[in-house]
Amino acid sequence: MLHQFKVTAKSSTSKARAGELQLVHGRIKTPVFMPVGTLGTVKSLSPEELIGAGTQIILGNTYHLYLRPGCQVIDLFSGLHDFMHWKGPILTDSGGFQVFSLAKLSKITEQGFSFQSHIDGSKHLLTPEKSIEVQICLNSDIIMCLDQCIQYPAEKKEAEDALNLTTRWAARCKNTWQEKTGGKNALFGIVQGGMFEDLRKISAQALTELDFSGYALGGLSVGEPNEMMYDVAEYSLPILPENKPKYIMGVGTPKDLVELTARGADMFDCVMPSRNARNGQLFTRYGTINISNAVHKTDKNPIDPECGCCTCLNYSRAYLRHLYMSKELLSYRLNTLHNIHYYIKLMETMRQAVCEDRFEEFQKNFYNDLNQGEKYEKKS
Amino acid sequence: MLHQFKVTAKSSTSKARAGELQLVHGRIKTPVFMPVGTLGTVKSLSPEELIGAGTQIILGNTYHLYLRPGCQVIDLFSGLHDFMHWKGPILTDSGGFQVFSLAKLSKITEQGFSFQSHIDGSKHLLTPEKSIEVQICLNSDIIMCLDQCIQYPAEKKEAEDALNLTTRWAARCKNTWQEKTGGKNALFGIVQGGMFEDLRKISAQALTELDFSGYALGGLSVGEPNEMMYDVAEYSLPILPENKPKYIMGVGTPKDLVELTARGADMFDCVMPSRNARNGQLFTRYGTINISNAVHKTDKNPIDPECGCCTCLNYSRAYLRHLYMSKELLSYRLNTLHNIHYYIKLMETMRQAVCEDRFEEFQKNFYNDLNQGEKYEKKS
Repeated sequence: MLHQFKVTAKSSTSKARAGELQLVHGRIKTPVFMPVGTLGTVKSLSPEELIGAGTQIILGNTYHLYLRPGCQVIDLFSGLHDFMHWKGPILTDSGGFQVFSLAKLSKITEQGFSFQSHIDGSKHLLTPEKSIEVQICLNSDIIMCLDQCIQYPAEKKEAEDALNLTTRWAARCKNTWQEKTGGKNALFGIVQGGMFEDLRKISAQALTELDFSGYALGGLSVGEPNEMMYDVAEYSLPILPENKPKYIMGVGTPKDLVELTARGADMFDCVMPSRNARNGQLFTRYGTINISNAVHKTDKNPIDPECGCCTCLNYSRAYLRHLYMSKELLSYRLNTLHNIHYYIKLMETMRQAVCEDRFEEFQKNFYNDLNQGEKYEKKS
Repeated sequence: MLHQFKVTAKSSTSKARAGELQLVHGRIKTPVFMPVGTLGTVKSLSPEELIGAGTQIILGNTYHLYLRPGCQVIDLFSGLHDFMHWKGPILTDSGGFQVFSLAKLSKITEQGFSFQSHIDGSKHLLTPEKSIEVQICLNSDIIMCLDQCIQYPAEKKEAEDALNLTTRWAARCKNTWQEKTGGKNALFGIVQGGMFEDLRKISAQALTELDFSGYALGGLSVGEPNEMMYDVAEYSLPILPENKPKYIMGVGTPKDLVELTARGADMFDCVMPSRNARNGQLFTRYGTINISNAVHKTDKNPIDPECGCCTCLNYSRAYLRHLYMSKELLSYRLNTLHNIHYYIKLMETMRQAVCEDRFEEFQKNFYNDLNQGEKYEKKS
């Protein structure tokens, strides 16, 4: 199998673990953060910059790429990698979440999602089979099963129905994947079940029986309190197979990454570092700063003097604020570069801490720095 | 003197020439194209990318930088170079043209321009002295005298009054420059006189008597026919001192650069390569292509297979079209990189042709390629 995972180290004071995941386009070290490249580009950055920031794997959005440029174009390049000039691994989502959140959704049936494009109103049917086929066209290293997302809060009956549909779809996804790829690319199942412990267990068990290359927790970071999300991870992650990568979708803040890694998560993706960068919010070990703040106007210091990203090595807060206030394109780019670098380094630091079995110490330092940031924030 | 110019080669079939201009932040080879970095950034590009494309010198806009971030900020960095992380030479304009075209202009008097900021309506007075002081704060390698621009077409009386005011202001600029810099940074005078040969001669002569480090032709590319612009250059450039650099401001298309280099111009700046890039128009030796054109949708070829820019080396027209249609930030960047590279290489090619005294052959090839482009355009 090309998609092999092994756990290489475990923390003795938490469930945090370090691992290696072999994929078609390369091997990645976990825990890992995957920058989001919605439309075949991590907004504003070049692949070379992503690599420079330590990016190992990126995420592409099936829904967006299916609508634009479409498989007809991507097929010419035998997948997303050559199309966008990214040689490393790519994970693609199933498209289900965007249909749910962006498209005009007309119907969910046993067959799949009927929806209208948010771009031109054209009508489409996204079935489990179709989602896998599109992801195969993208030549995704990690293909995600189509799942049904629900809103928070949701009634138990609704959560149960959605998880059962998700399970039936997962079986169809696996059939299509086996038939069309011979199992070359990895296929992950997605655990649903809302915020209900018994439902999450039912989902996890059913998917485990189907046997996937890895497992994700879906339906988190949808408005629930942080502690509730951590609880779901706490009781869901341990019942998933130990020897498979565990991915928490669409999460989160730096604190979320730390708390969820501590609970045994291996993989994350989130638009937060890139989207917030474009809104002028920059991450540092001492908390976030807003570059539009007037206090930065004459500040010759970098965002973080200890940061080694190209933005911090070459540019001052005063310049970054000027670019941001002037709505210059370079602003989005330099800010994004810094935030992606911050997220990636955070994951690297956690991995190192696991490998050296000092994750507890890492956590203490992480929160110490954040708390010091109270002062820092005011100064910033 | 730190700003020394020498002509190193001349074409025997035209007035084209090659030269070297020593400035405070480095030596540049002419003929040269200067990308425009209005607000302390060539929109979307990093300084490293500019250097990679062969950029020797960039232009900054005094009006814009004076209003935002202002001298208070730039002074902290002892000039624009450190502020924006550009280590090479910078030329700054005087601010006059932007006051004329962007600001709410209340009055032109002997003293200077009274105007209101286009950003916040604040009131300012831009005198010749003030313009030089701001440019000294920017630590510009080449400072431009404040001039009065006029519209096209203009009555002769209006053109004459403007050129006379420009001459009187030039003398005041030179005084301030001598007093405040001791002549360290270069100072260029700007020839005005509209489209009137006798007025251009009067202006050129008056400025020559004042003795500047270099001379510019202002008031071109303001709506006059191309041939008229070439005529003004043809009769104005030869009467300016042979041993000084000659700069045509705000020009132009690739054809303009060729025609004006042939008439003896050494320096150019224009927003065209960067602005048009952001509108999807890309320059090639065979003419321009519009990347939004549907014909590019499935085109795996680069913009120009013979081009060595990072965009052409790594990305297809299909991908560039996808980025452009999706309004992705990377689109503006990859397009700009290509166009700036095209402009810079065009100048390098002309310089080489002058040095090897085959400028006529260069011109023939340039027009041959463009004419072939008729076919190419249709295909594109």
